[in-house]
Amino acid sequence: MQAQQMISSHPSMRGEASDALIRCIEECYSCAQTCTSCADACLAEDKVKDLTQCIRLNLDCADICNITGRIVTRRTGSDEEMMHRMLDSCAVACRLCGDECMRHAAQHEHCRICGEACHRCMQACQEAGRKMH
Amino acid sequence: MQAQQMISSHPSMRGEASDALIRCIEECYSCAQTCTSCADACLAEDKVKDLTQCIRLNLDCADICNITGRIVTRRTGSDEEMMHRMLDSCAVACRLCGDECMRHAAQHEHCRICGEACHRCMQACQEAGRKMH
Amino acid sequence: MQAQQMISSHPSMRGEASDALIRCIEECYSCAQTCTSCADACLAEDKVKDLTQCIRLNLDCADICNITGRIVTRRTGSDEEMMHRMLDSCAVACRLCGDECMRHAAQHEHCRICGEACHRCMQACQEAGRKMH
Amino acid sequence: MQAQQMISSHPSMRGEASDALIRCIEECYSCAQTCTSCADACLAEDKVKDLTQCIRLNLDCADICNITGRIVTRRTGSDEEMMHRMLDSCAVACRLCGDECMRHAAQHEHCRICGEACHRCMQACQEAGRKMH
Repeated sequence: MQAQQMISSHPSMRGEASDALIRCIEECYSCAQTCTSCADACLAEDKVKDLTQCIRLNLDCADICNITGRIVTRRTGSDEEMMHRMLDSCAVACRLCGDECMRHAAQHEHCRICGEACHRCMQACQEAGRKMH
Repeated sequence: MQAQQMISSHPSMRGEASDALIRCIEECYSCAQTCTSCADACLAEDKVKDLTQCIRLNLDCADICNITGRIVTRRTGSDEEMMHRMLDSCAVACRLCGDECMRHAAQHEHCRICGEACHRCMQACQEAGRKMH
Repeated sequence: MQAQQMISSHPSMRGEASDALIRCIEECYSCAQTCTSCADACLAEDKVKDLTQCIRLNLDCADICNITGRIVTRRTGSDEEMMHRMLDSCAVACRLCGDECMRHAAQHEHCRICGEACHRCMQACQEAGRKMH
Repeated sequence: MQAQQMISSHPSMRGEASDALIRCIEECYSCAQTCTSCADACLAEDKVKDLTQCIRLNLDCADICNITGRIVTRRTGSDEEMMHRMLDSCAVACRLCGDECMRHAAQHEHCRICGEACHRCMQACQEAGRKMH
């Protein structure tokens, strides 16, 4: 991912892009991919019936991470209130989805990897939110 | 849109779908389309330079309405906290974007229509959030 | 949905918006919502194991309809080749997903409604593609 | 991004994930982020009027890469025809957007980086399409 180089060449940024912001963008896109993959892997499991809550949260979390990554990427104009709301919402989505994935971590490796990705993304969103004040 | 019929046939709903919920889903999808269209129409205006903040908010608002519509559509399992957060975030996005659009309503008919759509969607999200308690 | 009014006020359109184009945009957004809802309703069914292929196609079709609706909405600049490709891809997605849904139409009302929505969207995409030549 | 580990733990894959597939997923998500960033950086340029076609293609390309990444990630059930169509559409989107970005590469570093990302993603989609036969 080239979030760093892209933001460095943004006319409104003048090279000022906090590491927290870059990390947040990268974790959001990465977590969106991981949650999409976990929802799909859960759907292929024999005991899919036990994983419907996990699939549902994965689908919601993938959508939220996806657009949080987009919104935080945009640096033109001003949209601080919306960005803070989305960082908060995304941190909540990642906490709920990560906790649910971790309940299945012992049986399903994809849930373990995804749970850890969600918790990492949660922290990156919280950190980016703090740095923005 | 067939949100009503689809939710009526959902195995977890047993016909129980509040009007507020259905209206919220429909306004979210409709507002997502309107904001995408307004961003694009602004981009084609001669004075695009005066509309960059409007375009930026339109792009963010389109993304948020899009996935709020998806998340509220999903009724399997339980995801109340995430849904409330997204309804709040979406109401904020619609307020900010709608207010900005209204600043250009006199010059640009697309901004007027979009501003009204945003404010309608904001109310639908707030109403759905209240009904969910 | 206000696709008609929005396109009428687009600076590049001068009121020229074919009915086929408007109908395609509306069917794409509507089908995106219906497929998201059907994937979720299938996930809540007791026999979810028999519906995994249906869920998978619903998720893909929802994503494709979503962005086809966005791309066809945009009228600034020129992007004919991309638009034709997406209209074709969306028609294929709707055919495959609609056919699969129809296999479950007798047991699940949500699959019947969704199958019909997919086939309607397929036709709207094909018609819009023809009108664009 | 953890596409490799996720697909290795997918119940339908048994460790079989071609490098071409993994690379395609990663390039799609990365290119989606880069195009979103380039559209936004173009919007902030003084001469935004000269970049409207670039912005428009960037927005379309970001959307297409986003969902191609999602669709290729999903391995449950069978959806070969849809996947091939989307890989083709995504390669076309990346070619058109990459070529347009390259026209502005000398003036805008973000367009140069984005043009290269698009061409890399185009090749990754073509390669994944060939390996799938």
